[in-house]
Amino acid sequence: MKIFEEIESEVQSYARSFPRVFNRAKGEFLYDEDGTEYLDFLAGAGTLNYGHNHPIFKKLLQDYIESDGITHGLDLHTKAKGEFLEAFNEKILKPRDLDYVMQFTGPTGTNAVEAALKLARNVTGRENIITFTNGFHGVSLGALAATGNSHHRGAAGTSLHGTSRMPFDGYLGDDVDTTAYLDKVLSDSSSGIDKPAAVIVETVQGEGGINVASFEWLRNLDVVCKKHNVLLIVDDIQAGCGRTGTYFSFEEAGIKPDIVTLSKSLGGYGLPFAVVLFRPEIDQWKPGEHNGTFRGNNFAFVTAKAAIDYFWADDEFSKEIKRKGDYVADRLDAIVEKYGEGNFTTRGRGMFRGINCVNGDLAAKITRKAFQNGLIIETSGADDQVVKFLCPLIISDENLKKGIDIVEQAIREVCAKEDSMPEESDYFDDVRVAS
Amino acid sequence: MKIFEEIESEVQSYARSFPRVFNRAKGEFLYDEDGTEYLDFLAGAGTLNYGHNHPIFKKLLQDYIESDGITHGLDLHTKAKGEFLEAFNEKILKPRDLDYVMQFTGPTGTNAVEAALKLARNVTGRENIITFTNGFHGVSLGALAATGNSHHRGAAGTSLHGTSRMPFDGYLGDDVDTTAYLDKVLSDSSSGIDKPAAVIVETVQGEGGINVASFEWLRNLDVVCKKHNVLLIVDDIQAGCGRTGTYFSFEEAGIKPDIVTLSKSLGGYGLPFAVVLFRPEIDQWKPGEHNGTFRGNNFAFVTAKAAIDYFWADDEFSKEIKRKGDYVADRLDAIVEKYGEGNFTTRGRGMFRGINCVNGDLAAKITRKAFQNGLIIETSGADDQVVKFLCPLIISDENLKKGIDIVEQAIREVCAKEDSMPEESDYFDDVRVAS
Amino acid sequence: MKIFEEIESEVQSYARSFPRVFNRAKGEFLYDEDGTEYLDFLAGAGTLNYGHNHPIFKKLLQDYIESDGITHGLDLHTKAKGEFLEAFNEKILKPRDLDYVMQFTGPTGTNAVEAALKLARNVTGRENIITFTNGFHGVSLGALAATGNSHHRGAAGTSLHGTSRMPFDGYLGDDVDTTAYLDKVLSDSSSGIDKPAAVIVETVQGEGGINVASFEWLRNLDVVCKKHNVLLIVDDIQAGCGRTGTYFSFEEAGIKPDIVTLSKSLGGYGLPFAVVLFRPEIDQWKPGEHNGTFRGNNFAFVTAKAAIDYFWADDEFSKEIKRKGDYVADRLDAIVEKYGEGNFTTRGRGMFRGINCVNGDLAAKITRKAFQNGLIIETSGADDQVVKFLCPLIISDENLKKGIDIVEQAIREVCAKEDSMPEESDYFDDVRVAS
Amino acid sequence: MKIFEEIESEVQSYARSFPRVFNRAKGEFLYDEDGTEYLDFLAGAGTLNYGHNHPIFKKLLQDYIESDGITHGLDLHTKAKGEFLEAFNEKILKPRDLDYVMQFTGPTGTNAVEAALKLARNVTGRENIITFTNGFHGVSLGALAATGNSHHRGAAGTSLHGTSRMPFDGYLGDDVDTTAYLDKVLSDSSSGIDKPAAVIVETVQGEGGINVASFEWLRNLDVVCKKHNVLLIVDDIQAGCGRTGTYFSFEEAGIKPDIVTLSKSLGGYGLPFAVVLFRPEIDQWKPGEHNGTFRGNNFAFVTAKAAIDYFWADDEFSKEIKRKGDYVADRLDAIVEKYGEGNFTTRGRGMFRGINCVNGDLAAKITRKAFQNGLIIETSGADDQVVKFLCPLIISDENLKKGIDIVEQAIREVCAKEDSMPEESDYFDDVRVAS
Repeated sequence: MKIFEEIESEVQSYARSFPRVFNRAKGEFLYDEDGTEYLDFLAGAGTLNYGHNHPIFKKLLQDYIESDGITHGLDLHTKAKGEFLEAFNEKILKPRDLDYVMQFTGPTGTNAVEAALKLARNVTGRENIITFTNGFHGVSLGALAATGNSHHRGAAGTSLHGTSRMPFDGYLGDDVDTTAYLDKVLSDSSSGIDKPAAVIVETVQGEGGINVASFEWLRNLDVVCKKHNVLLIVDDIQAGCGRTGTYFSFEEAGIKPDIVTLSKSLGGYGLPFAVVLFRPEIDQWKPGEHNGTFRGNNFAFVTAKAAIDYFWADDEFSKEIKRKGDYVADRLDAIVEKYGEGNFTTRGRGMFRGINCVNGDLAAKITRKAFQNGLIIETSGADDQVVKFLCPLIISDENLKKGIDIVEQAIREVCAKEDSMPEESDYFDDVRVAS
Repeated sequence: MKIFEEIESEVQSYARSFPRVFNRAKGEFLYDEDGTEYLDFLAGAGTLNYGHNHPIFKKLLQDYIESDGITHGLDLHTKAKGEFLEAFNEKILKPRDLDYVMQFTGPTGTNAVEAALKLARNVTGRENIITFTNGFHGVSLGALAATGNSHHRGAAGTSLHGTSRMPFDGYLGDDVDTTAYLDKVLSDSSSGIDKPAAVIVETVQGEGGINVASFEWLRNLDVVCKKHNVLLIVDDIQAGCGRTGTYFSFEEAGIKPDIVTLSKSLGGYGLPFAVVLFRPEIDQWKPGEHNGTFRGNNFAFVTAKAAIDYFWADDEFSKEIKRKGDYVADRLDAIVEKYGEGNFTTRGRGMFRGINCVNGDLAAKITRKAFQNGLIIETSGADDQVVKFLCPLIISDENLKKGIDIVEQAIREVCAKEDSMPEESDYFDDVRVAS
Repeated sequence: MKIFEEIESEVQSYARSFPRVFNRAKGEFLYDEDGTEYLDFLAGAGTLNYGHNHPIFKKLLQDYIESDGITHGLDLHTKAKGEFLEAFNEKILKPRDLDYVMQFTGPTGTNAVEAALKLARNVTGRENIITFTNGFHGVSLGALAATGNSHHRGAAGTSLHGTSRMPFDGYLGDDVDTTAYLDKVLSDSSSGIDKPAAVIVETVQGEGGINVASFEWLRNLDVVCKKHNVLLIVDDIQAGCGRTGTYFSFEEAGIKPDIVTLSKSLGGYGLPFAVVLFRPEIDQWKPGEHNGTFRGNNFAFVTAKAAIDYFWADDEFSKEIKRKGDYVADRLDAIVEKYGEGNFTTRGRGMFRGINCVNGDLAAKITRKAFQNGLIIETSGADDQVVKFLCPLIISDENLKKGIDIVEQAIREVCAKEDSMPEESDYFDDVRVAS
Repeated sequence: MKIFEEIESEVQSYARSFPRVFNRAKGEFLYDEDGTEYLDFLAGAGTLNYGHNHPIFKKLLQDYIESDGITHGLDLHTKAKGEFLEAFNEKILKPRDLDYVMQFTGPTGTNAVEAALKLARNVTGRENIITFTNGFHGVSLGALAATGNSHHRGAAGTSLHGTSRMPFDGYLGDDVDTTAYLDKVLSDSSSGIDKPAAVIVETVQGEGGINVASFEWLRNLDVVCKKHNVLLIVDDIQAGCGRTGTYFSFEEAGIKPDIVTLSKSLGGYGLPFAVVLFRPEIDQWKPGEHNGTFRGNNFAFVTAKAAIDYFWADDEFSKEIKRKGDYVADRLDAIVEKYGEGNFTTRGRGMFRGINCVNGDLAAKITRKAFQNGLIIETSGADDQVVKFLCPLIISDENLKKGIDIVEQAIREVCAKEDSMPEESDYFDDVRVAS
């Protein structure tokens, strides 16, 4: 631990919530140096949909390395890249009738978002991008302008511009369809919202607090975009790759975005990887206009192909996600009904679920308590008020139940204490343990 | 090849210069699907200082994977990260008397630059960043504002601001010390150059055309920064990790920058990795202010540690680089003297060398010709007029000679043709072959 | 006319609607070179609340000039300025219990807005300014960022930033209090609306189409601002100086903005003049931080003082405006009911009134027809769809009736033609006459 | 005085240097309320080239007012405007073979600059504007981005962008032609200086410290602009209208800028007025794109025409300015030689002259001392180190001598004291008197 305190920057974040040195991982489990096992309901913030070190992907990766397959080749054509493209085309795009080309960006979600925004701006010749309240799209400067979180925005140190913020689905209450507001400002030449290049949206806002856009709202959004000749970008970095039950999170809404960003679980094994998909007609990039040294992470091509081959050749995996997702939903509903005294609510879609505890301190107590009992789970939302269930999609039923049980137990204890002990002594105890 | 034409975006760049499907790589060699061998003088644009798939690093990585070491763990403390930090601290920082903390950013150079600029802005409360003519720092929006290249800047689609451009060493001729100009504008409250948070500089501008800053100029720059209480950021992403002969490219200048960015060859094996180093006093990040899903690429920690242990435990490697660098310098000087009719010049430091052919078309002919003879080599500079020698530092003397011989032969042929055949038929032949 | 065609820029606007060379003016009348009289329902776009060349002001101005009173003195203290300040303090501020200091800016409304925004940003250390749909605040770059009109915004040629747009009162329908939305985004740290320095609002949006904010909405806005420690700027450039019935347009709402901008009719005689008023506590300007050559237009001080002395020493004038305003309202309601087939609506407050013809072409036909009958009247709104009644407040009852009669007649004719002649021949005839 | 302290904002500047209440003015004299006479070597910061209240202009203005000529008519065609345009065309443009159209902007210099920058950006479709060190172009946000002064820039409260700063003539020493640097960055596609819409330059930088561009430098600048197809804007707001000896300050350089801004002395009588002149081919404004309530200040049209008729019908006035300018130059050279111990230098052209005292405190002492002896004179430059001689061009030889004598006397006294009394007691005495 000492070396981390000594020379790792104060910017570290998750390491503060889970102050152990981890060593090994397998499936839904992480292990620390002492061999203690932790059930992982954080899953790399959505990067480990297929769990840690999936044995099949691992074997293929080992074979690739052993054979001295290209590791780094800039954006050169490689056999690994070609095979990934084939698999993605045949098993993901074609069955969904999606006609997209793929851009390999720097292997981070924020870089894919940067590329998507650039492309939209260049294709349309417009600067403005419509973004939504509570949206999260990364923290490099272009993506950060689209992100809503003030903690991250405040660190920019320079003005974030070129975006206009609109209320997400439900933000103005259930009675207001906020796409009608968007339609109005785009129809009104004096609205002060400059005609945008694109709208960028998450179908389920992960960092924003697991806010789910309804399919109807997404369809209306699609209609408004088409009406005003504005590109629709779905940022599927966290919600995509099966998290909500289908490969792309927008499938059930029946829309086909102009541009899609993917990253996180795309690589399958947790390796850095990010792409942008878009309609061929808008592929107006000039050679190398958006570049980056690591845009060809060939290890990730190998494991990404494996993930597609193994999990997405048919719809079995999708059904599994939905089945487990329903289980999570039922359990969370029951928990909320039992505890929280009517204040807690549930939210989510597929295996992208959460409990809104309203109060961030309360949510933090719950996740800390869960960690003491061997569960890694985090919060999200503006005030970190939502306990976020983001376990590997491949989790066993038994461990899924176990993880939820731990949270339920934590909520029970925390809520009981809250009632009996209004003083914050418990809070500070926890902190002392954690530090 | 068909799948690339079919669904990979037009943004691809290097794949256009070297239109093969590559398959395997080892040391200084790449192999295409047909088994054809190519000598690699591009080296992942500086990412493969230790060559492709170095056998020692490979073994360690294989062991790590086999043992189910953590692959993805967000920014959690892991054993692999801790061991990398130890090695970097003991073998890189301490021997150079550098007191830095390390921030793990998203694993791309541009993300490290974004973090460095944010930090400088937040620590100083100032927005402006001094950047230099022909500088290259990446293409995400924050970094792009610091980058000089109009091809990349033009793709932003929104205004790039928060930077002021200054002439790099030599830009105003040999007689003008451009740091004196910087000193003047910073001393003049009406200069219109807002007091900057930081200066960001490459000691050798790679993409800008292998422009070398003199040690004196770097020292003067350091003095000006200190005088005006401005942070000095050295972007050592391409020039660092031994490329110029020392681990950091600024060592011989005797300066200690406030902030340093590293990426490319840092990971050793070509895996995505990037960090920012800075003085502990300016580590004023709040937890998670700059984040990113892949900021803990544990595979890269393993191979990065291996690279440090194996190559940087003493100064042998450094000496080797200088010896080979001198050889390259001598050969290039001789080539330039023999061909180019007095127009060509050489430039560079260590094994970061180039021939300025003045004319970009000419340089392109040379590199195309070289590729026909089995050498992968690229150009850089505003007009792609500089043939860039960037081979792995571990290259054998024999292959180093062989690569340079191929370029010499290509220059001889191209210059001969230029003289005898002013018509462009050769050019179009090449293009036809390439497409 | 020839010289105007020859060397005046194409940017000219009103001169296109009223293609005459005007020569003389008095009260509510303008006269062209041929001596033709025009009733003026445009009134310098709100600059001539006291009519043209008011005889009392004129006499005082003539005396001042004759005595060689200071004409131009930068921002030096002058007797004329001092007397204006005294009058404004005694007759405007004190009776309304407003504790403001006054800043003399460059003598244009847009310059006052620039100063107000700067001050708010500097006092709070925040950059963002909340602006409203359909707001108009001027066209210099700082003010233009706050203005909604795309015709003007589109001419910027550079990005307009530092503002966030919110829906004005009624923009989301009668059921939605848009200040609740503002409250929500300011309460939500992930809303993506950066905490603002200030809100800038017109109580009645003139250029935006005579959109009236209800007093309740203004009070709610004031409450939201206070709750979030955000400054409230009322841009009273067009609605102030009596136009709505009280000196400041916000008086009846019972609010006291932190900052108020005034211009247009402030000078009384139509001379360039603009000021910013603000609470003494936020007078944190450093000497000369915002400057300008003409910020001491002494002629305007003389006539501005005269306007205050003559019209605002008691509440008689205010009552008169309300009486006439009610008359206008009644007449417009009757017209709308009679013509327009249920599509037309009325809007406004005091003598700031309009008829929304929904269709801009239709509104243009009406104003052109009115001009043929000797009335100068203009349109506003995003589509120029609102016929804007903005006559001098001092207009005689007879001429007020006469002007409205002309509009009524024009509407009758235009609407009759619309019914009988769907073809656009009439439209083009008009254009031919006008050009 | 009390009312100023009570309710005028702290932003006031000149009023601090000359703490009197002024009342009357005539020619080169100002009078305070007590009847004390002050010789005016500030002349409205260049607005009063024809002195205060010129009797001929006054008479014409009085006649105009008496006849109820239009005072305010937005941008309507008026007889006064037409006659001004005729006079300007016949007596200013045609004799100089300048083919310009004229745009009437809001009546402030900064507004003219805003319009010029917008036009250049719209015509070229480019955003960037080249500006120079120590340039001053106004303080509204668009113009402020072009202004160099950090005191003013610092008040923006938001980022100033869309400009790139270049060194003015002489900034890098006498040996460096800074237009060659500009040529280089515009020729270099990786310079990081985005291809600009325009260059904006003052031929003599007034606020910047009376820095004179040589005619050769201006010609070179013109050549560079033409070579790169960049518009050349001369901001002649302070240097124009005869100040340097010719009507436009660029005449003797033999260049014809694409765009020229005029204000300050253009109106003749000190009334707010500003215009932009440009080649007809770039008059690509759409109607009303840049607007403003007071862009038709008819009083100023009357006196502006009078100034042209009376002073610019032949070259007599021009000769007079040069004669007096030479006298000022000779006197200042002599003063500098006599005092200042080799540190002081002179600078300027025509009647736009200054003494660089190097030290701002010293310059302030000199101007304070001069004020005690009845002379109003100010400083400029980054450190307010230049005593700026900016008297009315129509000043009598006697008063010109008298004013310079007062300065000479002040310098003698201040320099004597400096030698004998290094302590700052004198400084604080002065301040006490002033406050």
